[in-house]
Amino acid sequence: MERSMRLKSVAAVMLAASVAASTPNQGTAEENQPITLRAMGSFHVGGRLATISGQPVKEVTFTPGGVPAKLDPNGTYQVEQMYVQYFIPQNVSGTVPLLMWHGGGLTGVTYETTPDGREGWLNYFLRRGWSVYNSDAVERGRAGWAQYPEIFKGEPVFLTTANPFERFRIGDGAGSYSDDPAKRRAHPGSQFPAEGYDNFVKQVVPRWTTTDDATIAAYIAEVDRVCPCVILFHSQAGQFGFKVAQARPDKVKALVAVEAAGIGDPANAAALKDIPILLVFGDFIDQDSRWPKMRQNDLDFVDRVKAAGGSVDIIDLPKIGIHGNTHMMMMDKNNMAVADVIEAWLKQKNLIR
Amino acid sequence: MERSMRLKSVAAVMLAASVAASTPNQGTAEENQPITLRAMGSFHVGGRLATISGQPVKEVTFTPGGVPAKLDPNGTYQVEQMYVQYFIPQNVSGTVPLLMWHGGGLTGVTYETTPDGREGWLNYFLRRGWSVYNSDAVERGRAGWAQYPEIFKGEPVFLTTANPFERFRIGDGAGSYSDDPAKRRAHPGSQFPAEGYDNFVKQVVPRWTTTDDATIAAYIAEVDRVCPCVILFHSQAGQFGFKVAQARPDKVKALVAVEAAGIGDPANAAALKDIPILLVFGDFIDQDSRWPKMRQNDLDFVDRVKAAGGSVDIIDLPKIGIHGNTHMMMMDKNNMAVADVIEAWLKQKNLIR
Repeated sequence: MERSMRLKSVAAVMLAASVAASTPNQGTAEENQPITLRAMGSFHVGGRLATISGQPVKEVTFTPGGVPAKLDPNGTYQVEQMYVQYFIPQNVSGTVPLLMWHGGGLTGVTYETTPDGREGWLNYFLRRGWSVYNSDAVERGRAGWAQYPEIFKGEPVFLTTANPFERFRIGDGAGSYSDDPAKRRAHPGSQFPAEGYDNFVKQVVPRWTTTDDATIAAYIAEVDRVCPCVILFHSQAGQFGFKVAQARPDKVKALVAVEAAGIGDPANAAALKDIPILLVFGDFIDQDSRWPKMRQNDLDFVDRVKAAGGSVDIIDLPKIGIHGNTHMMMMDKNNMAVADVIEAWLKQKNLIR
Repeated sequence: MERSMRLKSVAAVMLAASVAASTPNQGTAEENQPITLRAMGSFHVGGRLATISGQPVKEVTFTPGGVPAKLDPNGTYQVEQMYVQYFIPQNVSGTVPLLMWHGGGLTGVTYETTPDGREGWLNYFLRRGWSVYNSDAVERGRAGWAQYPEIFKGEPVFLTTANPFERFRIGDGAGSYSDDPAKRRAHPGSQFPAEGYDNFVKQVVPRWTTTDDATIAAYIAEVDRVCPCVILFHSQAGQFGFKVAQARPDKVKALVAVEAAGIGDPANAAALKDIPILLVFGDFIDQDSRWPKMRQNDLDFVDRVKAAGGSVDIIDLPKIGIHGNTHMMMMDKNNMAVADVIEAWLKQKNLIR
C-alpha cells in the first residue's frame, strides 16, 4: 500500500509535469479572443410533484399597490428539479460535453467567474472547444428550494462570512478570519485572490444536508438528457459525481474530482472500472484539520476502483510545482494553470478531437 | 382623460404598426447564426453584513463520510446581495447596455430560454448587438437568501403548480388549471407553449413580499456599477424599474415595462420626465380579475410622468395585431415578434447605433 501510493504519486508527477510543459497557461492571451457560440440557453430537469394539505388559505399582495390574490398553500408543488445552463462553442473540440457540478453552499457561479473579476473555468473550457453544461444542484440557486419541514426534511444551513475562509483552506484554520480584511491570516503563498473574498461570500447560498437523494436523482436526470459526457465536480459533489457515474457508467467518459469531499459507494467501486478518473488536490492539506482525512477517503475509494481494474490518476498540485491552491482552486489566481493540468489529462484520455 | 387615453392608444398603434412593418421577425433565421461574444461572466453586487447572536453551536457533517465541522450560527452574514450575469457581444450596437429584471417568484431564467426550448429574449437582444446584464434579484436564484425571521422579516411564499397558470393569464382564471395537461383550460388563441408549462413551473422559486427595500438597494448598486443603460423589467419588477430610475434618473436612458405589476413613487413622477418609457401589455387583460386594475395603475402613473413633460408610449399588443400573449410574453410562441416591437422602439429612441 505504502509503495503503491508512492508509485501512484510519482506517476502523477510525471504525467502532470509533461502536461505542464506541453501546455503553457494561455489564459491571458485567450481572454482577448472572442468566444463564438453555436448555441446557449438553459433548462431545468428532474424533480417531482409533492402535495401539501390541511393549511389555511392566505391573502397575499405580491407587489405594493397591486391587487391582493388568494394564496392557497394547499396543493401540488414542483420540487427537487435542478437548473442547467449550457454553452455550445461554434467549433467543438471535446468528444463529449463537459458537465460542471459545484460544491456545497454554492452554485454554478463557482465556475463562471472569479471573485476578483477574472475568467473562470467555464470560459476556459469553452474557449478550448468544450460544450459546457454548468448547473445549480437541487435546492441551490436557480434550482429553487421547497418548504421545510413539509417537503425538505431538516433545516437549511447558512455559512457565516468567516466559515469558508477557515474551512476552504484560504485562511490557516479556526480563528484565521477577521471582519477586517487587513487582519485575515491567509496561508502563506495562498493563491486565493484575497481582495475578492468579500465578493466570494456573496456567492454563498443556503444549503441542506438532507437532500442528497433528491440531488442525485436530479443529476441522473441531467446525465440521461445530456450524456455521454465528462463530469467535473467539486467538494460536496464528490459523492454526487461518483454515485451518479456508478448509476450510469455507460454514459460517463471521464470523472474529474476536484477535492472531492465525498465518495461513491465503495461496495460498487467496480462500476467505475471503465471510466478514467482524475483526482486533483490543492495545497495546505497537511496543515488542515479535516482535509487529510477527506483526501485519504478519496484515495481509499479509488484504490477499490483500481483493484477492480480501473484507471485513476492522482495529482497533488504542490508535487508538480503548482503551489498555493485553496479548496476553491477554480477561483485562485493560478486557476488557468490548474485548468491546463485538467485539460491535458482529458487530452491524454483521448477526449479531445 | 378619456380622450387623451384614446389618443395615446392611437399613437401607440401607429408607432407599433410602423415598427412591425419595418422589422420582420428574424428569430428563426438568426438562431442558425453563431453568437460571438467579446466577454461573458458574472458578479454579485450590493448587500450588507448582518449579525446573528445568542444561538447554540451545532455540529454538521456536510457530506456523508466527511468529517464533522463545528457550525456556529452566531456571527456575521453577507445578505441581500444580487447576482448579475453579463454577455458582451463582439459587435455592440446598443448605445448602452440592456439590463433585464425578472418578475416575482422567478429568476433571470425568465429571459434565457422558453419552457419549450426555444431562444429567449436574452439571446434575441444579444444577437442584435446589445450588451445584456441578466440578473437574479435579492433572495432569488443565485442571489441567495437569508435567515428568517432573524434577517428577512416575514415568511417565503411558494407557488403551487396551478398558481402561475391561473394568475399569469395562461389559463382563463381560477379553476382553469388541472394536473392533467389535457384538461387545462388555456385562453383561446394563447401563445403560451402549453406543452412547456410543466417545465415552466420548474423555474419558479420561493419569494418574499417583505424584501422590496433590499431589492431596490441592490438594483441601485447594479445601476451604479453598470449604467448608463436601458432597463427592461417585468411584472413585480415594475416597482423596482420605476423606483430605481427615480433614484438614478441620469443613469437610465430608457425604461421598458413589460406588464408592470407595480409602479414608482407617484409624487416623484417628474424624476422620469427625461427617460423615454415604453409600456407593453399582452392579451386577455379585460377577462382577467386583476390585470385591468394593474394596467390602469400603470397608465395613471405614466400620466403623471407625461404631465411633467415625459415621453411615454403604450403598446397593447392586440391593438397592433399581435394576439394571444400571456403575462409571460417573453416565453410565448411569438416571443420574437414581441421583442421586435421593443427593439424597434429602442431604435426610434436612438438607442441603437
